[in-house]
Amino acid sequence: MVVSLRLPSLTSLFSPITTTTANSLRRRTPAFLRRSRSHRFQSQQLLPPPLPLLAARFSSAQGTAAAETASEEQRVDSNAKSRVNSDRDRVITPRSQDFNAWYLDVIANAELADYGPVRGTMVIRPYGYAIWEAIQEYLNARFKETGHSNMYFPQFIPYSFIEKEASHVEGFSPELALVTIGGGKELEEKLVVRPTSETMVNHMFTQWIHSYRDLPLMVNQWVNVTRWEHRTKPFVRTLEFLWQEGHTAHATPEEAEKEAMQMINVYTKFAYEQAAIPVIVGRKSRVETFAGASMTYTIEAMMGDRKALQAGTSHNLGQNFSRAFETQFTDENGQRQHVWQTSWAISTRFVGGIIMTHGDDAGLLLPPRVAPIQVVIIPIWKKDDDKVGVLNAASSVKEVLQTAGVKVKLDDTDQRTPGWKFNFWEMKGVPLRIEIGPRDVSSGSVVISRRDIPGKQGKVFGISMEPSSLEAYVKDKLDEIQSALLEQATSFRDSNIVDVSSYDELKVAISQGKWARGPWSASDEDELKVKEETGATLRCFPFEQPQGNKTCLMTGNPAEEVAIFAKSY
Amino acid sequence: MVVSLRLPSLTSLFSPITTTTANSLRRRTPAFLRRSRSHRFQSQQLLPPPLPLLAARFSSAQGTAAAETASEEQRVDSNAKSRVNSDRDRVITPRSQDFNAWYLDVIANAELADYGPVRGTMVIRPYGYAIWEAIQEYLNARFKETGHSNMYFPQFIPYSFIEKEASHVEGFSPELALVTIGGGKELEEKLVVRPTSETMVNHMFTQWIHSYRDLPLMVNQWVNVTRWEHRTKPFVRTLEFLWQEGHTAHATPEEAEKEAMQMINVYTKFAYEQAAIPVIVGRKSRVETFAGASMTYTIEAMMGDRKALQAGTSHNLGQNFSRAFETQFTDENGQRQHVWQTSWAISTRFVGGIIMTHGDDAGLLLPPRVAPIQVVIIPIWKKDDDKVGVLNAASSVKEVLQTAGVKVKLDDTDQRTPGWKFNFWEMKGVPLRIEIGPRDVSSGSVVISRRDIPGKQGKVFGISMEPSSLEAYVKDKLDEIQSALLEQATSFRDSNIVDVSSYDELKVAISQGKWARGPWSASDEDELKVKEETGATLRCFPFEQPQGNKTCLMTGNPAEEVAIFAKSY
Repeated sequence: MVVSLRLPSLTSLFSPITTTTANSLRRRTPAFLRRSRSHRFQSQQLLPPPLPLLAARFSSAQGTAAAETASEEQRVDSNAKSRVNSDRDRVITPRSQDFNAWYLDVIANAELADYGPVRGTMVIRPYGYAIWEAIQEYLNARFKETGHSNMYFPQFIPYSFIEKEASHVEGFSPELALVTIGGGKELEEKLVVRPTSETMVNHMFTQWIHSYRDLPLMVNQWVNVTRWEHRTKPFVRTLEFLWQEGHTAHATPEEAEKEAMQMINVYTKFAYEQAAIPVIVGRKSRVETFAGASMTYTIEAMMGDRKALQAGTSHNLGQNFSRAFETQFTDENGQRQHVWQTSWAISTRFVGGIIMTHGDDAGLLLPPRVAPIQVVIIPIWKKDDDKVGVLNAASSVKEVLQTAGVKVKLDDTDQRTPGWKFNFWEMKGVPLRIEIGPRDVSSGSVVISRRDIPGKQGKVFGISMEPSSLEAYVKDKLDEIQSALLEQATSFRDSNIVDVSSYDELKVAISQGKWARGPWSASDEDELKVKEETGATLRCFPFEQPQGNKTCLMTGNPAEEVAIFAKSY
Repeated sequence: MVVSLRLPSLTSLFSPITTTTANSLRRRTPAFLRRSRSHRFQSQQLLPPPLPLLAARFSSAQGTAAAETASEEQRVDSNAKSRVNSDRDRVITPRSQDFNAWYLDVIANAELADYGPVRGTMVIRPYGYAIWEAIQEYLNARFKETGHSNMYFPQFIPYSFIEKEASHVEGFSPELALVTIGGGKELEEKLVVRPTSETMVNHMFTQWIHSYRDLPLMVNQWVNVTRWEHRTKPFVRTLEFLWQEGHTAHATPEEAEKEAMQMINVYTKFAYEQAAIPVIVGRKSRVETFAGASMTYTIEAMMGDRKALQAGTSHNLGQNFSRAFETQFTDENGQRQHVWQTSWAISTRFVGGIIMTHGDDAGLLLPPRVAPIQVVIIPIWKKDDDKVGVLNAASSVKEVLQTAGVKVKLDDTDQRTPGWKFNFWEMKGVPLRIEIGPRDVSSGSVVISRRDIPGKQGKVFGISMEPSSLEAYVKDKLDEIQSALLEQATSFRDSNIVDVSSYDELKVAISQGKWARGPWSASDEDELKVKEETGATLRCFPFEQPQGNKTCLMTGNPAEEVAIFAKSY
């Protein structure tokens, strides 16, 4: 390491996080976000247009330029201090202080999403959408590999369809958005804006499926869905959201079960390997099963505030919808039978899960495999003489990495200081930062900093610019970060799951904000009682079960399985 | 070529198109499609479940198996005959006989789309959706290359937004679907299900754009949109459809104009190079300009029935929406100005354009670059002894092509005869077919047939299975087909555009079903008169203009430009 060599040449180039910088960042936060951090979205229709902000931005840029004489040591100190500083100096509320405020601050400042004009709706901004695109790209390939085709079902569902499956209508009717006027006329039948498509899918499957030769029928669609939610939160629960919904029909219950399991496993693998989220995979209780399903499998993720997030589900629908819609096929013996079905979904909620799993006080922290930008390059120069050399070097480093398939951004604007950029891209959660200054250009090397290890510890000097070695180094580091994030999230998860053997122990664990895991064979009523008394719900019966005899924590009766209870989103 | 060598060994393997086969195909057509081929979609809610079809399918398979002694010569003859045969023997109405019936037959038989339960809605089936995915893949990459980011705007727009831009509300209000009930309650303000997003976009842009530094802002979304159309037709005009809508904001009118032009050029290049559709690119007249735009650029495609299809548009919105929504920025001199905007879109209608440009009496014909399956491999065996060898060879050919990036399908089911498969995949429009029989396996070669050249002419024997030469051959052929389709469509287009110098000549051209091109400087009223009297509309003022002085065909006044008039979808 060449720390001592490097420092003198860079001392004047960094700006500490000053009040001015923080304020300028704060001004980037839309006013309404600062005003309200409640769970509910506020209607934005009546807001006045924003005030001119240019003056503030200019002055902040000057302010940081003036502060550029601070040494890197000071920068790190100041940076560290600001992390524990009072809210006055910060744009992002510390995570530990107010998790919800932190979450909304991160979403606003990292420009992941904004509020739509209709209560509870969300605009997914390019940076947030790019995370969704990374999710789509991975899952879409897996869906196709496992034999599914994409297609598109209309979003308007005749109201009568929803009523056909009894528990489905019970589950969804309070949440429906209804179109009653079309082309200027009152419609004869109200149309439901799809909250999910099982009914539409079955209406069509009934027309396409005739014999066992038409099975299995395995399709998926990437679409928007609408549920009239009352308590909304960006990504986690919005009136309209994006998802994929897979729908399959099979000739036997075994095949349907295998498919439902296959897809929850695809989700699990995605969560662990791409999103670095160590989900617990398991089966939902009867109470928590999807409206219309025989069995729901789920992946449950622990957020940074230790609340559970249901991050993906796969349903074995049995013959519930095929009986309601008469979706039948002629089997090999010439007998008519109802098909066996599954459906499975992951939504933009998962983006919220990524934010809340990995983010920290400095903002977003993205696992490399879902990061829209994996590496940001910050060129650093003071004298105009150095500028061209530094920018050329930065461009060729960018070229090298881009060619190697790394998602890289070169931030070469001269409107901002390097220090401002450091903080900005840290806040945006970019996993790796490459710094290139005049001294680096001379020595043919770069400085690389890890987003997940703050300050000096995460910074390595003197990495060679030589293309093949730089590529190898960067890819290694990205892999290391990916693993480190999963490891960290796993140990956080494991230290916050408590094994309980009585209802009292469960209550203590929940009141401490933890997940409680204990043997459970009690009734639906008991489950609802837990919810009422503790606020925790039965998240799942995990697939991974401890050995040995078990006694139900609630009734003292023998239990087959442990269940996990937790407060959840 | 080894035609004479090959024929004897294959004589017994092909089945002619028999009445039974055709009937079995006919039974694949949903009943309601056979009943009604009108422009209007029919409501499907009250249809009885389909009858058991298995018996029919079985008997047809046996029928074709029994007919397998026909020679290949006979097959070709029978095939050719059936192309001109009476409708009784056909599943697809001949294109020349009834273009609209042919179009609906192709969509049903090739399983591109189906009717949704709500009048005018469409289910896009996997094969049709895969064409849309090919369109998306190409355009999405071009959008990103040209600096646009994907994002997502909510689909529910407060009704008041639509009213803000005067011509916009006039254009769209008759077509709106309105949500009036949400979560069981009557809403205070009706919500419009997005017919297009300019109003929503401007509402958000107003919050994000502050200074010239925030410009240009260039985004795109791939979404569903709803327009309450009364005359619908699958892909071409549906109540709900899929599209991408690009939206940009700029600091100067020049930049906005440049962007609008850039995007119509992206569309043009796509149409020519990917879809093999020789569109005419030009400017819309005032009458035909998008509701809210200052200028609309369009690509106009000539369908097989010589009707025009508006296949993509790019709008220079000027300051129309920015004034209505007060979308302002502070320029470099500190002055507040309204932004200059564009929007541009291509929709699933384009899939209809591909079908209607290239399809023929045998069904769909897909340009290789948008084909979900570019090559289909049909293994041919009679004796069980031969089966393993043939299937192994077919699998390795598939492997070779797949590795080379060719989209290939191996149809190895033994439920259907080779002849049935030939016809089926021709009908599905797969550009190339590879046949592999026992003799081919021995000689290490395959037979390759072009979909665009029927019968023997398009068939080449003795193509080596050697991986690199096979790959090169197939890729060459695919390129040839791609070019041939564009060439054919171009000469069809050019032979159906008539230069006219008077209104009488225009009327003759239109009455012959052709496009009329002539100098035009007449009034909006004159333009509407042409529409009323001939049914033709002014499709565009083409960018490519003839030299020399021009005299308006309607008024005899000097004219700057020629315009194209045509009947259109």
